[in-house]
Amino acid sequence: MEVTRADIEAAAQRIESYVRRTPVLEVEPNLFLKLEQLQRTGSFKVRGAFSFLTARPDVEAVVAASGGNHGLAVAHAATTLGRLADIFVPTTSPEAKIERIRATGVRLHEIEGYYDDALEASRRHLEASDAVEVHAFDDPLVVAGQGTLGREILEQVPDVDTVVVAVGGGGLIAGIASWIRDDARVVAAETRTTNALGAALDAGHPVAVEVGGVAADSLGAAMVGEIAFEAARRWVDAAVVVDDADVIEAQRWLWRQARLVAEPGAATALAAVLSGACGVAPSERVCVVVSGANTDPASVG
Amino acid sequence: MEVTRADIEAAAQRIESYVRRTPVLEVEPNLFLKLEQLQRTGSFKVRGAFSFLTARPDVEAVVAASGGNHGLAVAHAATTLGRLADIFVPTTSPEAKIERIRATGVRLHEIEGYYDDALEASRRHLEASDAVEVHAFDDPLVVAGQGTLGREILEQVPDVDTVVVAVGGGGLIAGIASWIRDDARVVAAETRTTNALGAALDAGHPVAVEVGGVAADSLGAAMVGEIAFEAARRWVDAAVVVDDADVIEAQRWLWRQARLVAEPGAATALAAVLSGACGVAPSERVCVVVSGANTDPASVG
Repeated sequence: MEVTRADIEAAAQRIESYVRRTPVLEVEPNLFLKLEQLQRTGSFKVRGAFSFLTARPDVEAVVAASGGNHGLAVAHAATTLGRLADIFVPTTSPEAKIERIRATGVRLHEIEGYYDDALEASRRHLEASDAVEVHAFDDPLVVAGQGTLGREILEQVPDVDTVVVAVGGGGLIAGIASWIRDDARVVAAETRTTNALGAALDAGHPVAVEVGGVAADSLGAAMVGEIAFEAARRWVDAAVVVDDADVIEAQRWLWRQARLVAEPGAATALAAVLSGACGVAPSERVCVVVSGANTDPASVG
Repeated sequence: MEVTRADIEAAAQRIESYVRRTPVLEVEPNLFLKLEQLQRTGSFKVRGAFSFLTARPDVEAVVAASGGNHGLAVAHAATTLGRLADIFVPTTSPEAKIERIRATGVRLHEIEGYYDDALEASRRHLEASDAVEVHAFDDPLVVAGQGTLGREILEQVPDVDTVVVAVGGGGLIAGIASWIRDDARVVAAETRTTNALGAALDAGHPVAVEVGGVAADSLGAAMVGEIAFEAARRWVDAAVVVDDADVIEAQRWLWRQARLVAEPGAATALAAVLSGACGVAPSERVCVVVSGANTDPASVG
C-alpha cells in the first residue's frame, strides 16, 4: 500500500491547526536538527493520530495499544476532537509516559507485562466494542500524518542532502521517505537491538527481531509494518545501526551543545551521525529528526 | 550612550559565524518563543561576548566577573578567538555553570562569597595586568551584540506586536529595544526581588536594589547599567514584576508543553505572560525571549 504526496498534502491540511510546525536548529554548520520533540505531546506521533481522526469523523471511539508516545498522541487527539479513547499500556512503560496519558482523562488500561500483552488486551476490547483501532505505524492515514514532517523539512532546510530518521515500526520513516522520495538521501537509524527495518531489508520481507536496550520503549517494535517496508525498499537509501552507548552519548551531546532533551529513541538518528555509522561528506547538508522527549529530564544531564 | 541600529547591524555581521540563529517556536497560536537557550554556551550572553572581542582585535587578554552565563560566554568566545581570559566566579554560583566555565580551559578564579566579591577580585587583577574587562551589560559593544537577538525576532516573527524580555543588568533589553524601537511594544519582566529596572524607572535614575529569590543568579544585578536605563526610558513600554512561584510555574509549563528546559531567569519573561502580569489582548502576537538554560535539567520536571 503506497502513501502518496497527495495523501500527505491532504493530511497536512487536516492537521494544521492541531499540531505545531516545529522549528529547525542549525546546531553546527550544515547539521540541522528538526526539533520534533517540541511537538504537542512531546513526539511526532500526534501528527499521525490527528491525521487518522480528522479523516475518520465517523469514528466515535478509538483504541490504541502503546508503550507510550503513540498512546499519548491518540489520547490527546481523541480528547481534543471529542472522541472516546481506550489506551492500553504495558506496566513496563516509563512512568513519565503513563502519567501523561492518564492526565488527558482517557480510559487508561495498565496491562501487566510488555507491549504484546497490552496489544492482546486491546484486541480483546476491540472484539467486544464498536471502537476502531489506531495502529501505531502500519496504517496509511497514520503514515500520511507522519509524512507531514518530511514536507516541513524540505521547506525548512533548502537544498538538504540527507535526512536521518530513527525507526521503530517504521511509520515515521515511511511517511518522510514517501514525501522526500529522491529529493534527498533518506537514512534509517536503528539501535543494534531494535533493528527491525535492517533485518527486514536483509530478509526481503518484514521479520520478527528480538528487541531490547535503551531505546526499546520507543523503537522496540518486533517487526516493521508492510507500508514501511515497501516505502523503505523504494525510497530509503541506507539503514545503519548504532550501539546503546552511542545513543546515550548523543543524548548528552544534545544537552551539552544545545540544552535539548531527547529520549533515547529520539537521539538514535543523531547517534548515527555523531558515531560515524551514517557517513557524511564535507559540506553535505544533513537534517536529523529529533523525534521525541517523553523522558525524565534528569536522565540527560 | 546610545546603541544604534547601525551598531547592531555591524555586530550581527561580525558574530554571524560564531553564534547560532536560534529558532522560534509558535507554542500556542500567536505566542512565540525565541529559543535562545539553544544558543552556544546555553544563553544569549555569547552574542555580546563575541561582539566585544571581534570589535577589539587589539585586546589579547580579557577579564570577566560573572555568576555564570556571562563568564561562560566570555570564556567560550575568548578561547574560540585565541585570546586569554581570566574569569572570576563567586562560589555561590550554581556548580553546573562553574563546571562549564572550567571546561573551556580558561583561568578560573573561584572567589568565596557573592558576585560583588568576585567583581572586587577581578578589579584587583585588572589593576595588575594589561587585560581588559568585558562588562556583563553596561558596554556598548556587548549591548550591540545582544541587540542582534532583537533583529532576528523582527525577521522571524512578522508583524509581532509585543516582545517580552527578562531583565538583570539590562544588557539584553537595551540591545533588543534599541533595535525594535517603535516597531513593536517592548515589555521588561523582572522578579519582585530582582527589580532593578523597575526601581530605576520609578526613581528616574539607576538605583541599587536588594536582590534574592530563584532568579537571582542570572537576573540579580543590584543596579541596571546606564546604557540600559537610557534605552529603557526611551524604548521600553512597560516594566512588570512576577513572583518566584510564577517563574517556577513557567519553567514547568515549558517542560510540560514543549519539553524545553529554561533556567529561572530565562523563564521570567514567559512567567510575565502566563501570570497575566503582562496583559495580552486577544489576537496580539507576542514573542517571549527564553534566554538561557544553564541549569540542572532535573530541576524542571
